[in-house]
Amino acid sequence: MYTSKELKYHNIKDIPNCKIHGRTDLTGPAIPLFWNGSGVEVRVTGSELWIDIEVDFDLFEPWICVELNGAFMSRQMLMPGRQSLCLFRCMTSHDEKTVFFKRELQAMHEDDDCHILVHGFKSDGEFLPVRERSCKLEFIGDSITSGEGSYGAKEDLDWLSMYMSSSINYATLTAKAMDAEVRIISQGGFGVFSGWDNDRRHVMPAFYDKICGLAFGEFNASIGAAKPYDFNSWMPDAVVINLGTNDNVAFSNPPFTDPETGKTWKLRLKDREAGLRPLNYSAYNKEDVGQIRAAVISFLKDLRKKNPGSHLVWTYGMMGGELTIPIAAAVSDYIEETGDLNASFLELPDTPENELGAHSHPGAEAHRHAARILTGYLKNVLGKR
Amino acid sequence: MYTSKELKYHNIKDIPNCKIHGRTDLTGPAIPLFWNGSGVEVRVTGSELWIDIEVDFDLFEPWICVELNGAFMSRQMLMPGRQSLCLFRCMTSHDEKTVFFKRELQAMHEDDDCHILVHGFKSDGEFLPVRERSCKLEFIGDSITSGEGSYGAKEDLDWLSMYMSSSINYATLTAKAMDAEVRIISQGGFGVFSGWDNDRRHVMPAFYDKICGLAFGEFNASIGAAKPYDFNSWMPDAVVINLGTNDNVAFSNPPFTDPETGKTWKLRLKDREAGLRPLNYSAYNKEDVGQIRAAVISFLKDLRKKNPGSHLVWTYGMMGGELTIPIAAAVSDYIEETGDLNASFLELPDTPENELGAHSHPGAEAHRHAARILTGYLKNVLGKR
Amino acid sequence: MYTSKELKYHNIKDIPNCKIHGRTDLTGPAIPLFWNGSGVEVRVTGSELWIDIEVDFDLFEPWICVELNGAFMSRQMLMPGRQSLCLFRCMTSHDEKTVFFKRELQAMHEDDDCHILVHGFKSDGEFLPVRERSCKLEFIGDSITSGEGSYGAKEDLDWLSMYMSSSINYATLTAKAMDAEVRIISQGGFGVFSGWDNDRRHVMPAFYDKICGLAFGEFNASIGAAKPYDFNSWMPDAVVINLGTNDNVAFSNPPFTDPETGKTWKLRLKDREAGLRPLNYSAYNKEDVGQIRAAVISFLKDLRKKNPGSHLVWTYGMMGGELTIPIAAAVSDYIEETGDLNASFLELPDTPENELGAHSHPGAEAHRHAARILTGYLKNVLGKR
Amino acid sequence: MYTSKELKYHNIKDIPNCKIHGRTDLTGPAIPLFWNGSGVEVRVTGSELWIDIEVDFDLFEPWICVELNGAFMSRQMLMPGRQSLCLFRCMTSHDEKTVFFKRELQAMHEDDDCHILVHGFKSDGEFLPVRERSCKLEFIGDSITSGEGSYGAKEDLDWLSMYMSSSINYATLTAKAMDAEVRIISQGGFGVFSGWDNDRRHVMPAFYDKICGLAFGEFNASIGAAKPYDFNSWMPDAVVINLGTNDNVAFSNPPFTDPETGKTWKLRLKDREAGLRPLNYSAYNKEDVGQIRAAVISFLKDLRKKNPGSHLVWTYGMMGGELTIPIAAAVSDYIEETGDLNASFLELPDTPENELGAHSHPGAEAHRHAARILTGYLKNVLGKR
Repeated sequence: MYTSKELKYHNIKDIPNCKIHGRTDLTGPAIPLFWNGSGVEVRVTGSELWIDIEVDFDLFEPWICVELNGAFMSRQMLMPGRQSLCLFRCMTSHDEKTVFFKRELQAMHEDDDCHILVHGFKSDGEFLPVRERSCKLEFIGDSITSGEGSYGAKEDLDWLSMYMSSSINYATLTAKAMDAEVRIISQGGFGVFSGWDNDRRHVMPAFYDKICGLAFGEFNASIGAAKPYDFNSWMPDAVVINLGTNDNVAFSNPPFTDPETGKTWKLRLKDREAGLRPLNYSAYNKEDVGQIRAAVISFLKDLRKKNPGSHLVWTYGMMGGELTIPIAAAVSDYIEETGDLNASFLELPDTPENELGAHSHPGAEAHRHAARILTGYLKNVLGKR
Repeated sequence: MYTSKELKYHNIKDIPNCKIHGRTDLTGPAIPLFWNGSGVEVRVTGSELWIDIEVDFDLFEPWICVELNGAFMSRQMLMPGRQSLCLFRCMTSHDEKTVFFKRELQAMHEDDDCHILVHGFKSDGEFLPVRERSCKLEFIGDSITSGEGSYGAKEDLDWLSMYMSSSINYATLTAKAMDAEVRIISQGGFGVFSGWDNDRRHVMPAFYDKICGLAFGEFNASIGAAKPYDFNSWMPDAVVINLGTNDNVAFSNPPFTDPETGKTWKLRLKDREAGLRPLNYSAYNKEDVGQIRAAVISFLKDLRKKNPGSHLVWTYGMMGGELTIPIAAAVSDYIEETGDLNASFLELPDTPENELGAHSHPGAEAHRHAARILTGYLKNVLGKR
Repeated sequence: MYTSKELKYHNIKDIPNCKIHGRTDLTGPAIPLFWNGSGVEVRVTGSELWIDIEVDFDLFEPWICVELNGAFMSRQMLMPGRQSLCLFRCMTSHDEKTVFFKRELQAMHEDDDCHILVHGFKSDGEFLPVRERSCKLEFIGDSITSGEGSYGAKEDLDWLSMYMSSSINYATLTAKAMDAEVRIISQGGFGVFSGWDNDRRHVMPAFYDKICGLAFGEFNASIGAAKPYDFNSWMPDAVVINLGTNDNVAFSNPPFTDPETGKTWKLRLKDREAGLRPLNYSAYNKEDVGQIRAAVISFLKDLRKKNPGSHLVWTYGMMGGELTIPIAAAVSDYIEETGDLNASFLELPDTPENELGAHSHPGAEAHRHAARILTGYLKNVLGKR
Repeated sequence: MYTSKELKYHNIKDIPNCKIHGRTDLTGPAIPLFWNGSGVEVRVTGSELWIDIEVDFDLFEPWICVELNGAFMSRQMLMPGRQSLCLFRCMTSHDEKTVFFKRELQAMHEDDDCHILVHGFKSDGEFLPVRERSCKLEFIGDSITSGEGSYGAKEDLDWLSMYMSSSINYATLTAKAMDAEVRIISQGGFGVFSGWDNDRRHVMPAFYDKICGLAFGEFNASIGAAKPYDFNSWMPDAVVINLGTNDNVAFSNPPFTDPETGKTWKLRLKDREAGLRPLNYSAYNKEDVGQIRAAVISFLKDLRKKNPGSHLVWTYGMMGGELTIPIAAAVSDYIEETGDLNASFLELPDTPENELGAHSHPGAEAHRHAARILTGYLKNVLGKR
């Protein structure tokens, strides 16, 4: 294999022009990529570029993708170990190239070993400043926002790393259309008040404050996952919350017993509806719906505190709209109570059968549809101000 | 002009197989087409078919369109007078053709003379039963549902009959995709609590009970417009309400003084927001938003009374989403209060600049987009039951 | 009916700003609209506009369409007689409007009575110069170029006026995309060497030199149809020939006996292919294919003589590609023989089953597809020079 | 990393159910993947699957992609060495999965070291028979058929491995739409009579007979590249030739001197056209065009000999149509001369500026467009028989 003789190793800490995407801890010797959509982006000259990374996992292997000058180039599974991946070779040396190395996989709360660390680059060129995007967007969500099903065949029903993506999920598509820098905080199965299986510990608000509250285990702690996140370090123009889909599913699922307290949790259907497939939330126990509404209000208050200047928009609907009304009503209650002038609700269209991807989740076309609507909404809202 | 020698005149009252679309009065000698989307549909043999109609208007000329075997064939302005329009000629006689003659223009409350009456047909064939659609949909709306802007260039800013349609508006496109029979009750500028100009008389709930409460004047009265509508005569599977857009606009418009009472109406912005373009309803006077919410709840109760078996879905958003939250919250309140298990809310996407049609209204592509989402929603809801 | 009190009648000969589209004879008191796509276009102020026309026909009624400011507004069948059609009413008087009144129906060689004459306009405004397009295109073709099947349902198999159009056929769509003025010379069933039924009189080259050689009968003669066309009066940037589809069909059809000479014509299959559905032209009698090739060459020479500065492009393929190779080879022979530097061949895609419109002809989507390819081609070619 | 304890190694020679795609030599201990689109496909149960490969190259690194159950899953650059790549992990063991491991990169005649060998699989499941496709297609082409530009940004102008693909080029898209097994024989820069730079050694006919005539060097010879290909081993229903684009480019490029003979080659413009950008082939030296025509005829004869039952279709046009006419005329001459009933020509649309991908080649959308047309053509032709 031919290789440039001018390659030099650059520790990532020595490349001030490297753009770090996603919440992370900058204090260690390497940069952890904790979240779906997090990554490192460089603008370089030179004929060749390698990235030096360190990877581990137990069950859920991380996937990454690489964009070259904004175009999707590769997507692959990573194996454990310290390793160099070649990002490009044999290019015209003096041309400037922008390379974005990006994590496809969400933070994996069920795999304490799962991590990617970026140590540095090998290059025979120079690192130049990366172009700044025109705005900043934060997404908080569940499997939809983790891009689950954006890759994979419709028949594929396993729950696997490889079906998730940041490369073609609606969050990234929206960000590209808005020329926005994006941070994604998402976890499959999680809700705002309850997880899909009635486990109430699996809710995003509980994990919002740390750099990456969903990366558990000693190693992840050692690289800063559990540290408090500095909300002043990156202030999004808008925060898009896409939660409620798993809370909704919990109504149809069996109870969950908290292993620590022995307490049993269950979002309940109304008695008279037992056995019926619910048409919408009117089949749900009123008190339980009220708890979800309260959780929405409470999370909005929390988000406002931590994002004082951001537009907050709660989106919902890509996997069924049963909770549209209570969620919108909760946003209404929040606004009534707080007088917040900068919060809203946006329904996204349900995914029709023929647009489903893997694991019965929205496929690529459904993500494009959602992105089109969300982009229209955000352009309007952010342009207004 | 060649013409079939076998043509015979059939009074419309003598054609039991003629399918009448839209709310109308069947007791007179002719069939009035009061509403946008109303019309007559026949399945005939024969080589030639003419329709015998009577038309008048002062300012707002009615437009009609003709579909042959489900395909759009013609669209034209009508002139005053009794007249025969040829619907087809020189076709293979023994073939069965389905012809739908349809009103494109909404009922015109500002033109007492405006009307279309169908007296009969001339045919050299036989009238056969029209195929029944698989379900029934009712739409209640404003200019969006009147298809305003679905025809016409983006630069055209007049308020004119010709820009309105039933042929390509989202209601008809949804009905086609659902194989549904459709009735449309809509009026440009009208709201649920207030008209666009703060005239609170211009609200659809006030006109829902009559056959066509928006066709005023002596002549329209004489053909049955003002008679009570028999809600048992046609029971829709779903009622789609698309109101709120004009209530929203009223907040930004000057006050209106009721000419009869001298009372002045105005939906108000919050004081502190004076002069600002509102981001969403949070800039609106809370009490006034409350009145809209109350009107939504009240109309839903009324609709439920008159449509006991129908799914009720309030849709909103094609021309701005400022009231999404209060309307959804009102639907929530309605459900809480009544325990209605069969009502819901669906947001439709705002129309981006590049999809605007005439008079700054949603263009053809925006109607297709809304129909796609609404069809997905209705297929899901109506299939569930 | 309200009508403007300021309406004045303008004989069309008194409106120098009126733009006449399509080959016609300007010497009479009225303007005949002979061809598909021919029409009159005005840019006017005023609140109201009427067109004064005279119509007749026996079997094949003409259809027209109206564009307002470039947007499709109406499409209707015409009835015999002198009549006024309202083109717009109640518009803002001082706004400038561009109105294009256009013939949808091809010249009808089987109906000597068929004609439309434009006598004048009634307007309460002023006639301003119409914007000139950036280039000129001429199309010579058969039923495809007459837009047959661009309207109508796929099940409709009659041969009727109403399925033809200039409003949405590929010629008009290409012209719109190119900002071109367009003239269409087309006739369903006609070929370059033979008509569809082996009638060799039905070939476009034989009718190219007259203003409208396909409008027969005394009346059409009296309004100038049979006069020689002045090729210097309008010099197209490109001439698009779309012929060969009917020559191809003739191979599979029975012989035709010329009623005048008693001579029988037939494009023959090879003996050994009798009974086989041909895969392509290799199943055809070689000599007969040679006659088609000769006719292509001869027509190109004729076209070059009459259009010395125009790019000549022979297109083919929207209804089957069996003759692609011989036609392209004929264009090759023509270029070899003449050294013409400005002639070419472009294949257009065959219409798949699911894009067929009425009468088994290309439907609206197929016309859009062809226009996309032809536009790309012409932009390239015309931009080169 | 968790790994299945049941994994067993299977030498590829011991898996009779493994489907080998692409021309290759089956006699060695491992399976070489010589061509773009070649690969191995298995249908397996088990929770985990690894592929054991051996890779080398000097300048041009090979890329591969993986499809799982027909869906694109990964795409990556390979590094030199023997290595195991994980194709899936942690899937439901008893489910059947179809995995297709495929070479993205064309055979690389400028890199003798470039190769991929498949040695075997590790699996904890069983290998089942792969579903047979319904037909077989062979493509012979240049950079277009090597998918150059189907990945990469429009601004990227280098000549690189990574911009090429079999995953989204028109050949694969056509094969998927036809449910066809596909073999691709293509090389960037190559023509039918001359390479892009006037090097006449770079023509596909010269390399058609060997298993992989474009893989040079000792090592490739040792794995069978230079062996004669057995045309009876795999008989395509259609052979699609897409050559001529580089012959066309050679007219505008400088002469090339054969390093072995010292002879200089040049496809010449006509004298009088010197300095003009040619509109089409009429600007080319007639004798030189004749040589291209002769080469087309000669290659068709050769193809027919080796593929006696296949439909032969010469396609052309995705990167400019200057040679459309001479190529179609050559196909015509071939048919005249041979009486071949089963050969044809199909023009593909030129790529407009806005659909270009990397290296000024057709981008993904242009490949989709070409595939749509070619699929329609082939369905028609193959369905006929």
